[in-house]
Amino acid sequence: MRWVRRAGEGNENVERSVERVGAGGMALYGKGAVPRDRPQTRIAPSILSADFARLAEECARMVSCGADWLHVDAMDGHFVPNLTLGPPIVKSLRAHTNAYLDCHCMLSDPSFWAEEFAKAGTDGYTFHLEVFAPDGIIDAESEAKTRELCQKVKALGMRPGIALKPATPWTSVKPLVESNDCDFVLVMTVEPGFGGQKFQAEQMAKVKALRQAFPNLDIQVDGGLAPSTVDMAAQAGANVIVAGSAVFGSEKPEEVIRQLRASVDQCATESA
Amino acid sequence: MRWVRRAGEGNENVERSVERVGAGGMALYGKGAVPRDRPQTRIAPSILSADFARLAEECARMVSCGADWLHVDAMDGHFVPNLTLGPPIVKSLRAHTNAYLDCHCMLSDPSFWAEEFAKAGTDGYTFHLEVFAPDGIIDAESEAKTRELCQKVKALGMRPGIALKPATPWTSVKPLVESNDCDFVLVMTVEPGFGGQKFQAEQMAKVKALRQAFPNLDIQVDGGLAPSTVDMAAQAGANVIVAGSAVFGSEKPEEVIRQLRASVDQCATESA
Repeated sequence: MRWVRRAGEGNENVERSVERVGAGGMALYGKGAVPRDRPQTRIAPSILSADFARLAEECARMVSCGADWLHVDAMDGHFVPNLTLGPPIVKSLRAHTNAYLDCHCMLSDPSFWAEEFAKAGTDGYTFHLEVFAPDGIIDAESEAKTRELCQKVKALGMRPGIALKPATPWTSVKPLVESNDCDFVLVMTVEPGFGGQKFQAEQMAKVKALRQAFPNLDIQVDGGLAPSTVDMAAQAGANVIVAGSAVFGSEKPEEVIRQLRASVDQCATESA
Repeated sequence: MRWVRRAGEGNENVERSVERVGAGGMALYGKGAVPRDRPQTRIAPSILSADFARLAEECARMVSCGADWLHVDAMDGHFVPNLTLGPPIVKSLRAHTNAYLDCHCMLSDPSFWAEEFAKAGTDGYTFHLEVFAPDGIIDAESEAKTRELCQKVKALGMRPGIALKPATPWTSVKPLVESNDCDFVLVMTVEPGFGGQKFQAEQMAKVKALRQAFPNLDIQVDGGLAPSTVDMAAQAGANVIVAGSAVFGSEKPEEVIRQLRASVDQCATESA
């Protein structure tokens, strides 16, 4: 168990080394804090919706607006039909910010790229389970490969996350969370590859099942999150919210970030 | 035949629509210009060596330092073992500059990506011959595929270029230049994939052979170009010079760009 800041106490984006919050059962957060049913709330604006020609400035603006993490969508044009960015851009960005860089790697060979992303300054390295289990159903071989990559990512000093496409059941990631190899699960609420898609509410069953099984797991949702959809994700148990166009497209991103955070914090308190 | 500015008359980076300079034999450049043995000199700083978090600013600086084109290295981590950037970043950059965006696509499926790069605002779309002829030796099938992509790129409003890895002979691109499908050849003077490599002087024989065969062809060299190596490329007949670290790594990029241009212009005049 460790003491972490309560939501609203300020945005310490410099928190580079993230540990799991305790183990087993409910977590207590800060002196006098009410108990929560989930880890700390994190709002992670996705730079997929940023002006890529002014990344340093865009990211600094998001941090000043209250962002906890910066979500970086790396796509290689093979795992998904979009080609965005890779390690050289993460490296350039790292030189301008101390913020936690949460890299969602939509890459067909995340094992190959882990070292380059680590050297570039990545904090969280999330890869897709479907790289090893193309149909989303884990078996002994794909479980072993997924575990091996989680361990490699940890050894490289990054935090391993596993992303699930909409068609992949939550049970596929269960053995990896139970073994403590994965402490971060990204539930895609759209098909990965492009920003601006509609939130798939039916994915909330997956979030709910994961939260019931793992109270201390960081559960991230990504795709179509906005003030109008975040309540569904918060009620299901998500605590890490990725938002791209809703934040970057707003004239008042600080207000959008505040709304997203308030929704998660309220649900976290109510359910505890 | 058309009149184009003489080197040194100023940097019109807004020249988006680039036509071939005449056809057959020597070209005349500008009123009272001396005859040249090659098309206009173009200095193209490679953004691979830029600060990717401040691309708009970095590119504006290069243009103000005299850059003719901005060279954009797109790599998908499959055709080469580096993952850099794709259409979303070109699109963001285009919103900040009118400069000619010269995209060198190190992508395993350049036919698939052509449309996205065109929509993003690409001017020159250079792909590798080795995508269709992996051993660098063209045959009827790979020639047809390469020609088809050149024509597709033109139809999309971009200028098609063909890049040759160091091991690929110049004769492989000959039929495509002769048929006017390709008016731009990139001779790699290092293995594609990473910046900062050593210039391979032996590639100059390829440049020389191409220049002798095609006086009006735009011949670009890329890899290890700097004031210390440019004379070799200029003497061989190159007229488009890509330089990454030599320009971006310099405290006086305007001076480096001036030196690169002077070397090409002097050789062009002397040989005419």
